[in-house]
Amino acid sequence: MIRTLVDSGVTTCFTNPGTSEMHFVAALDTVPEMRGVLGLFEGVATGAADGYARMAGVPACTLLHLRPGLGNGLANLHNARKAATPMVNIVGDHATYHLKFDAPLASDIETAARNVSPWIGRPERTADLCRLTAEAVFEATAPPGQVATLILPADVSWSDGAAPAAALPARVRAAVDAESIEQVVKVLRSGEPVALLLGGAVMRRASLLAAARVAAGTGARVFGETFVPRTERGAGIPRIERIQYFSEMAEAQLTGIRHLVLVDAISPVTFFAYPGKPSDLVPDGCEVHVLATGRDDAAGALAALATAVGGDTSADDAPAPQRPSGALTGATLAAAVAATMPDGAIVCDESNTNSVHMTAATAGCAPHDWLQLTGGAIGVGLPLATGAAVACPDRPVLALEADGSAMYTIQALWTHARESLDVTTVIMNNRSYAILNIELARTGAGEGGPKARDLLDLSRPDLDFVKLAEGMGVPAVAVGTAEEALTALERAQAEPGPHLIDARLSPR
Amino acid sequence: MIRTLVDSGVTTCFTNPGTSEMHFVAALDTVPEMRGVLGLFEGVATGAADGYARMAGVPACTLLHLRPGLGNGLANLHNARKAATPMVNIVGDHATYHLKFDAPLASDIETAARNVSPWIGRPERTADLCRLTAEAVFEATAPPGQVATLILPADVSWSDGAAPAAALPARVRAAVDAESIEQVVKVLRSGEPVALLLGGAVMRRASLLAAARVAAGTGARVFGETFVPRTERGAGIPRIERIQYFSEMAEAQLTGIRHLVLVDAISPVTFFAYPGKPSDLVPDGCEVHVLATGRDDAAGALAALATAVGGDTSADDAPAPQRPSGALTGATLAAAVAATMPDGAIVCDESNTNSVHMTAATAGCAPHDWLQLTGGAIGVGLPLATGAAVACPDRPVLALEADGSAMYTIQALWTHARESLDVTTVIMNNRSYAILNIELARTGAGEGGPKARDLLDLSRPDLDFVKLAEGMGVPAVAVGTAEEALTALERAQAEPGPHLIDARLSPR
Repeated sequence: MIRTLVDSGVTTCFTNPGTSEMHFVAALDTVPEMRGVLGLFEGVATGAADGYARMAGVPACTLLHLRPGLGNGLANLHNARKAATPMVNIVGDHATYHLKFDAPLASDIETAARNVSPWIGRPERTADLCRLTAEAVFEATAPPGQVATLILPADVSWSDGAAPAAALPARVRAAVDAESIEQVVKVLRSGEPVALLLGGAVMRRASLLAAARVAAGTGARVFGETFVPRTERGAGIPRIERIQYFSEMAEAQLTGIRHLVLVDAISPVTFFAYPGKPSDLVPDGCEVHVLATGRDDAAGALAALATAVGGDTSADDAPAPQRPSGALTGATLAAAVAATMPDGAIVCDESNTNSVHMTAATAGCAPHDWLQLTGGAIGVGLPLATGAAVACPDRPVLALEADGSAMYTIQALWTHARESLDVTTVIMNNRSYAILNIELARTGAGEGGPKARDLLDLSRPDLDFVKLAEGMGVPAVAVGTAEEALTALERAQAEPGPHLIDARLSPR
Repeated sequence: MIRTLVDSGVTTCFTNPGTSEMHFVAALDTVPEMRGVLGLFEGVATGAADGYARMAGVPACTLLHLRPGLGNGLANLHNARKAATPMVNIVGDHATYHLKFDAPLASDIETAARNVSPWIGRPERTADLCRLTAEAVFEATAPPGQVATLILPADVSWSDGAAPAAALPARVRAAVDAESIEQVVKVLRSGEPVALLLGGAVMRRASLLAAARVAAGTGARVFGETFVPRTERGAGIPRIERIQYFSEMAEAQLTGIRHLVLVDAISPVTFFAYPGKPSDLVPDGCEVHVLATGRDDAAGALAALATAVGGDTSADDAPAPQRPSGALTGATLAAAVAATMPDGAIVCDESNTNSVHMTAATAGCAPHDWLQLTGGAIGVGLPLATGAAVACPDRPVLALEADGSAMYTIQALWTHARESLDVTTVIMNNRSYAILNIELARTGAGEGGPKARDLLDLSRPDLDFVKLAEGMGVPAVAVGTAEEALTALERAQAEPGPHLIDARLSPR
């Protein structure tokens, strides 16, 4: 099975195994090409597999322990599904003949996996194991990518009778036909207000340049989706206006648009519903057109569009970052991050309420990749950084983490230390579920009384992320001013291996 | 809704809320009787609700954020299901009209809940909310107890039109009919080897005394299930032989039994399957009889049995614990725990490979309650302790935690600090997934090569639980000898509030 995975291009296994997975674990020593990476919690393993694939472009596999292990990994599998990340999600199960006894760990794995994993395979005999393994990789990599879950009964794992299966030929994205492109060309030439909405595979340099040419040639506006698995950005790459998270801002952005052209994006909706506010962000009277879905060659379609109607674009880089000083706020911390960002960085952004500062400040940095929380299931940032660093050992990784979100999968720090990953984690420590204090009012639930506000408060007791990091073997320092943040960031980036900076933000 | 919960006897809500739950959170201030307890991770909330109900005898409720929140809580919901714990599991969802937009957090909550929650309610309009809430409590408390999940759409929560519903009359356990008792009496008088197997509700003092009288009067043997939600034990309470976890030992225990009488227990099976070993632990030729299921009044049936055939029992207490000295091993640490155990303790045991030492050493302690991991989904101990301490503020709680298991839900320590819970956590720090090193060989997977063994090893880097605890506001100390363990335990028990002892066990 492991040989089949390796032959199909899957060479990293993020795992938290148990008894039913012991034969898989033991077999790792027989296939040198497969790397096993241990997480202390399954949400670390699934989030790391997501981060790995976003950067490597090929799937990793997970190895989880029955339904409880799958359950612990479910939040980040949800995020991976929303990111269209290719992943082979292997879940060990009881031996086939043991299930009927309803032993303590007996559980319905398939039902729990169904919603995050469109494809589920379950070999009932060892002879079928490798064929299904190759099929799992094939399904995981079907454009745009998805989670494919392989349920592995213990006796199928330990019995004889398997032989490696050959890799199946990868499916490619379907070319968008000329007629579809021509229709969008007509829309762009209609004289009415048009906007392109980009997501998924076209938030990369070449496609962003193509979209900028379309804008220059037609006057169309270009938006990016709010949450994107991987965006290339920085100096020399056209900046792109993102649809805002708060629906009242998003509505304002899209006001007056008469044609919205989706390019590997979905029609914009609000993240949550709010009393008396619409969920659908498409303005009344605006027509939605699909240039390309995630299954299509959206990048090729966008290039063709640029050839047809594109104009010249001129460099319009954001200003280079300046070194901040003084009190440590969301804005000065972001400036410090921007001023010290190393070349070729991979940024894993789960900074939530501070993300607006971070994205603004870093727009003019050297080119970098920006990975986001795609499904709203918080606790993805530190695991994403784990996987991205395993996939790209020569690139520095920066995890921008909100304090509340960090605590969901804080165990990832141990894997940062164990694997000596070059990850600098910056905790935005505002001692609060700050987003929920905003949402409390936005949902019409009011300001909240003392009991309500207490449930959104993380200051009793304060979390000390320096101790938490050191407890898991990651060197850490707390900073309380912009100058201290600059020093700590520069030191972290000068030394190999993981670091954590507990940025204690000033109260507003 | 909250008023209905309170009127139905549910007065504690363990939560990690999000935007869709803001109206529930805001409403907490309007019902003073409902206590809200925040966890930094949903597995803390669900495990705490389990521990609360095991000790309080009435359910708590949870409040979780859509399917990702439910997923994070799923492992401990699995344990609660196996413990037959009554729990009202409230999961917020998008507004009903928002679901069709497939927003980032849209997910199939019902499918994920189905396997841990036999009853699922989902009001589609506010007028139905309180009726379904009362029904959820009614279903949760149906003997022997179960998880009842109430899915709460945001608009059902924020719309007007609800009025509190009256509590539904609680169902009681059905009396076991005289004929069934008479049949077991005949078996006990058959002259053939008989054993009673006790679980669930009959691992309490009165029932254990009744079982001991049956044994004295008939020569029957008495066993307890391997994993039991709550056991009363200690001086003056008959000791009961537990079915062993390792199947070869369990087989030896049951050899020769011709009649196995189940008393709120299930027919014994192995925890996992192993190559070439049977899953069913009932010996060939042994007949299985059911005196009472979990839905029946098993305690009453056992009392009736004792009246019919019981003999006299004499006190046969285990020796009082002795203070250990020297190297810190599983055995000397257990002796230190036993020698210092406070009166009326509630022990949450997730000590895994060290549990055998802990149970043996504490058998002669003053009467106490012993709560176990019931479903094999590790990460229950620290949350169980949270809930038990909230339920019983006047009793000391002792969490006996394996290092690997502790890391799944380590965030519970913050809630111990926030709520000033009188929980002493003892980490058995052996720097290893020790059980898996044993299981590797038992499953026939061999000794494992370097890659396999590395995935079962927690020593690179070592986890420093003192720093982890202090990072979450819990005073902590590391101990390396039996004497240090005694001192630390005595100090922890002398001071109110939470403490953690990082017991660094000597390598074998």
